[in-house]
Amino acid sequence: MGETYRLNVAGLERDLHVCPLNDHVSIAGFIMFSDVELTVACAAELLKNLPDFDVMLTAESKGIPLAYEMSRQSGKNYYLARKGKKLYMTNPTRVDVKSITTEAVQTLYLDEDDMNALKGKRLLLVDDVISTGESMRALEALAEKAGAKVVCRAAVLAEGDAAQRDDIVFLSPLPLIFR
Amino acid sequence: MGETYRLNVAGLERDLHVCPLNDHVSIAGFIMFSDVELTVACAAELLKNLPDFDVMLTAESKGIPLAYEMSRQSGKNYYLARKGKKLYMTNPTRVDVKSITTEAVQTLYLDEDDMNALKGKRLLLVDDVISTGESMRALEALAEKAGAKVVCRAAVLAEGDAAQRDDIVFLSPLPLIFR
Repeated sequence: MGETYRLNVAGLERDLHVCPLNDHVSIAGFIMFSDVELTVACAAELLKNLPDFDVMLTAESKGIPLAYEMSRQSGKNYYLARKGKKLYMTNPTRVDVKSITTEAVQTLYLDEDDMNALKGKRLLLVDDVISTGESMRALEALAEKAGAKVVCRAAVLAEGDAAQRDDIVFLSPLPLIFR
Repeated sequence: MGETYRLNVAGLERDLHVCPLNDHVSIAGFIMFSDVELTVACAAELLKNLPDFDVMLTAESKGIPLAYEMSRQSGKNYYLARKGKKLYMTNPTRVDVKSITTEAVQTLYLDEDDMNALKGKRLLLVDDVISTGESMRALEALAEKAGAKVVCRAAVLAEGDAAQRDDIVFLSPLPLIFR
């Protein structure tokens, strides 16, 4: 199955595929999809480590199961910033974001109803992995436009230099693999 | 908040935004994101109405919370077909799909590990809404390539003519709104 990286997080052990990002750097692919046991455990562990908040905001798509499960366990609503504008959206707000896993500039949209729901709230920004921080900055831009107060930025893993940040909450570091 | 359609499903009532699809037809936007109560109730109600199955396959992104919750409740794994190819995917299989909510041909990818996990399994195809049926056909194409046996196609809602289909399981019809 190729090279793997053994991750320990939230009391569980997983072997992640190592995938080349470019000629010099590989990443260990952390995918929560299909893994309910991991999602439940990470959500519970993150919730133990967070300040008080009212609602959560995450980004499509890898943040969805985590935010959903944290919402189910905490009873606090989650909102989802989408990568594309859908016909069923009304007056969405748009911000731009660059991803290290797709190599392209992406755009996040948040529906008007969701923007209104964030207004004046203590907001938790949450994602599966914080790496370059671009997704978090895009979520932060949406939060600012919505008039929410970001009280915490949280992720299961902090990748590469992000593990040195003192302004985020995370469960485990995830190394970049240099060749 | 504009025109709405009142939906009753899984013992809950929701007012959906009505959004124009074109000059002649509008759709009621059914969004399970942010609504854990609805997701939990729909997952439980669908699971009561299904034949035996081993694993589930859904499509990014609107199917994610439903498949996740059905997996959590049933203990059976879910797998996710992605709309784009990611760097962390290994040898993904590709099929094409046309969506009525984005007006474009989309492509679904399923990772090699996930394809292998489906092989020989009794598979449930699940999504939030079945409308034109293109997404289901794309999931079906992935299932066939994987060597899975599709035992059921299920969705919370059947939109428009899909409500007349006798080869799908769904909880409520969702009308198209003609002008």
